[in-house]
Parts: sequence; structure tokens; C-alpha cells
Amino acid sequence: MVGIDVGGTTVKGVLVDADGNIYAKNETDSCRSGGCDLTDKIVGLIELLLSSTTDSRGKISGVGIGCPGIIDGRGGMVVFAGNLNLRNYPLADAVRGKTGVPVRLTNDANAAAFGEKIFGVGKNYKDVVMITLGTGVGSGIVIDGKLYEGSRTSGAELGHMTIVEDGRRCSCGRRGCFETYASATALMSDVRSAMFANRNSLLWKKVDPEKVDCRVVFDLAEADNTAKNVVDDYIRHVACGITNIANIFRPEAVIIGGGISGQGDRLVKPLQNYLDCNILGGNKYAPVKILAATLKNGAGALGAAALFL
Amino acid sequence: MVGIDVGGTTVKGVLVDADGNIYAKNETDSCRSGGCDLTDKIVGLIELLLSSTTDSRGKISGVGIGCPGIIDGRGGMVVFAGNLNLRNYPLADAVRGKTGVPVRLTNDANAAAFGEKIFGVGKNYKDVVMITLGTGVGSGIVIDGKLYEGSRTSGAELGHMTIVEDGRRCSCGRRGCFETYASATALMSDVRSAMFANRNSLLWKKVDPEKVDCRVVFDLAEADNTAKNVVDDYIRHVACGITNIANIFRPEAVIIGGGISGQGDRLVKPLQNYLDCNILGGNKYAPVKILAATLKNGAGALGAAALFL
Repeated sequence: MVGIDVGGTTVKGVLVDADGNIYAKNETDSCRSGGCDLTDKIVGLIELLLSSTTDSRGKISGVGIGCPGIIDGRGGMVVFAGNLNLRNYPLADAVRGKTGVPVRLTNDANAAAFGEKIFGVGKNYKDVVMITLGTGVGSGIVIDGKLYEGSRTSGAELGHMTIVEDGRRCSCGRRGCFETYASATALMSDVRSAMFANRNSLLWKKVDPEKVDCRVVFDLAEADNTAKNVVDDYIRHVACGITNIANIFRPEAVIIGGGISGQGDRLVKPLQNYLDCNILGGNKYAPVKILAATLKNGAGALGAAALFL
Repeated sequence: MVGIDVGGTTVKGVLVDADGNIYAKNETDSCRSGGCDLTDKIVGLIELLLSSTTDSRGKISGVGIGCPGIIDGRGGMVVFAGNLNLRNYPLADAVRGKTGVPVRLTNDANAAAFGEKIFGVGKNYKDVVMITLGTGVGSGIVIDGKLYEGSRTSGAELGHMTIVEDGRRCSCGRRGCFETYASATALMSDVRSAMFANRNSLLWKKVDPEKVDCRVVFDLAEADNTAKNVVDDYIRHVACGITNIANIFRPEAVIIGGGISGQGDRLVKPLQNYLDCNILGGNKYAPVKILAATLKNGAGALGAAALFL
């Protein structure tokens, strides 16, 4: 199968078999000039992937596409994707028309979750929820091995679960959404506030406020109280949302993606500890494990391909 | 099929066909003296239901049981039900052993949700979530027409989703759980606090603080500011949780059960209005409807019976 992951800046593609063996991998830049151009980019990428192997197009069972925005998976439509300048564009039909190959479409966060479930750290579990801590908080839900996307594939928006009523203002219009506390954007903003408020801290001394990244605050947390407080607060918020998710879905695993998941045990261990102490009825009878994603940026394209498994 | 709804004080039973036509209905008191007695009560109730019609036992496809507590549906076990004094009791096997009829077991809140989905207000929808606003907040999730129960049937605990980090203490050990704001218990406690704090209010003048119920505060809300504030605050909390549920599942309908749902439009209209204004991306593309339950106390037994559809 071919999997395509449409992002704001690049379109990634992989050619894989049912075991996740990658035969070809490539990418191109995204375009913001509308549906036809995006279709051409995707079709070009598919050609490139196929030409780089001895596999013929006849062997391709389908092309899966993960795309940001509001996606109507069943209709194969991009209902709205602001970054890509798309509205009500029949992407699946367009790509099918030019390649003659079946096409399936889902939201990019769903594709990433499905990728980790099928080929990544979630492969031994049946029910998993993935949250991606990035600019916002993306999420995907896999129930009984299948993606759960909600009515008209509009669900699985765990980033827009209020955890602090009357809390921070969210881009969605509500207050206190999980993503206003748990996204990488939120963490970086918290780091900046803490730096300016604590000018004796290592954080202030060692970090350029214009170049804050998430890694540095974890690196400094052992030696610097200001950094430690920011990390502790951040982890408490993330853990609160994950405990909600665990009580709601009781999945076998919650997978954490996004750059911050590279912190590994520094992130996962305290989260697991909080969850074990706070999940309803304790975490022994039906344990929920917290896992860092392993496929990194490749999860979306792999998961899109897996739509044809 | 026969459906049994085990409660803290009564065990209800119905004999129904696949269309929800009720052929017999009865109930008995619960017992707290352990599994064998409960089994005998249930078996007695089944006999009573069967003897009251011309249907023979041979025609019964199965007995579904909804039971409070931690339930292992697949194993047919009541893992823990404090009110019933049960721990690791194989209720399904015990009832099957004495009746010779297949038995299925689920949590009582799941059974109620399934009842409303199959025979009640949710019957025209595929994906519905039900919350029951009672002593706590019970909940059940129906995805693609099937109950979603989570790993070892321990999920669907929407009442234990934190909506106010560091908020009210919950019996589960966390703070700010949905049920600490949205249960009938919470509303009654809020009414009492408001009464004592506002001794010029109609609420204080007309209501005995020892006999507060949820209806009276809705009744007085039109004429009394104190009552109105309590109702408005309560609705805002319930709406916050429902909006979370809508963003997470994007179901076609959220069904509200429990005594408070008898308030009908006085409850449902402002909730729907809040949801329409706050759901991610607006409530037009993939609309979520809020509905008051219609089967009332009968939902649990009907839903338990429906486990055999």
C-alpha cells in the first residue's frame, strides 16, 4: 500500500507491505494553492514511490491519505483545511481519478494513531488512544483494532476537552481545553513566563527567550528549580488529561507522540505514576500503560497506508 | 429475552421480544447477603416472569443482567459491588447453572445506555452516549450500535473526567470530577448551600433544607434569583462535561437520564444552546443532539435484555 501524510509544509509518502516493511519513502513540499495542485503533488509523489521499486502499480492495493483539518472520511472529502486553503474538496476522488487506485482518507492525527497501533509501539494492543503534543494536541482513538472517528469523522478531539473550567482561552472558543495546558506551544509559553519572572534561574541565564524549545526545560529541571516547577506543572496537566482519557476509554495503552515524547522516561515515568495513583479503582485490574510513540514523523504515512489492511 | 436490572434496593425484571414489546414485568427487593442469595432472587424473578405468560422457557434466547459496580462482562463476573456485598462472584455462570439459559452481564449504566439506544429515545442513532445524573454520574457509550466498555469492561466512566483541575474532592480520590458538579447529589448540596447563604430567597422560605429535591429548584428558578443562580451554575457544569463528551466522541446524540431529566426542556434547551455555541467547529456539520431519556427506570432492564439482540 501507499501512505501519504499531508502536512502544512511537506507531503510525506511511503510504499509499504502489510508487515510495515518500507520499500520506498519520499516527500515533497505542500502547496497552499488549492485542491488541484495538492492532488498533482500527491499523484507525483505516488509515481515517484512506485518508480523507485520493481513493484508495479497493479500490486498496490490502495493509497491512504492522512490530512489535517475537518475530514469527511466516508465521503473522501476535505471539508476544511485552513493551512492548505481547502474547502469541500473531494481529495480521494481526485487522486483516484488520476491513479486508478482505490483511495481512503482520514484526519492526520487519526492516521498517526493508527500507524502507531498497527506498526509501532501499540501493535500488541487492541484499544489504544494516542495524543500528539505539538502546536496543539492532536488525538486518535483505536477501538477493537479499528479507528473510531465519530459522527462524520469529526470526533476524537481530545485536545478540546476542558480540564480547567474558566481556564486558559483556547483557539476553539472555549476555556481550559486540554491543549491550552498540554501542547508544546503551552509548555514553551510557560517556560518563557517562568524565565521572565525568575531572572536568577538557570533557565533565564542559559536560554534565549526567542529560542525556547521543550527539550531545554527538561534538561535544566534537575539543576534548576524554576525549570523543575515548569516541568512539574506541565506533567500534572498532561497527566490530568490522560487520567480522564483512561477513565473514559480504559484503553490498554495511551501513546504519546510529538517532539516532547522524545523525553522518554523523563516524561512517561511521572505520568504513569500519576495515572497509577489517580485512575478510577486503581491501575491493577485493567491496567492502562503510557507509552512514548516510536514511529515519530513516520506514523502518519504508515497509518494512512494501514487504512488498506 | 429477559432483562434484569440489579439495583441497590430492588431487582427489576422484564420479558420482552426483539421489538421491545413487554410481555411481563416484575421486581423484587435486592439482598446484601452475597452472591448465592442474589442468584436465587434473580432466578425467582425469571420464573415469575416466565410463569406470567404463555411463553415457555424454551423460547427465551437469553437473560441479560445489568449490575452496579466493577463488572467483568466477558467473564460474567461481578468483580466488586460494595452495595451488594459482592466480590469476584461469577453471577452469569450461577444464573446460567440454575436456569439453563445463556446469560450476559454488563454494568448497570451501560445497560441503561443500551436500553435507550435500542428501545428508547436513541433508537434512530448509531453512536450515542448516555449520562445518568443521579447519586453519581453514570454513563454508557454505544459506538456503531454496540456497547463500548473499554478494557476488561472498566471504561465509560465519564463521571470521573476532571472538568475543574483542583476542584471539588471526588469519592474516587481525584478532584474536580464531572460528577462532583453534575450529579443530583451535587445539585442538592448546592441548593442547600445557597439557601443558607440567602435567607431572603424564596428557596429558603419555601423549602425544608432536610427535604431538598432537584425539582423544586427548577420550579423556583423563574421567580427566585437564588434558585436561578443555582440552576444556571449547575447547567453550565453539566454543559461543560457534555461539550467535552461531544468533542471526544462526536456522537449523534447525548442522552440524559436520571430524575433530573424529567425537567425536559428546562434542562435540555439551555444545555443544547451551550453545546451549539461551544462544540468544536460548530454544531452544524456533524450535529450532536441532547435528548432526555424516555424509558426512565425501565432502561436498565430493557438494555440488559437487548444484550441478546
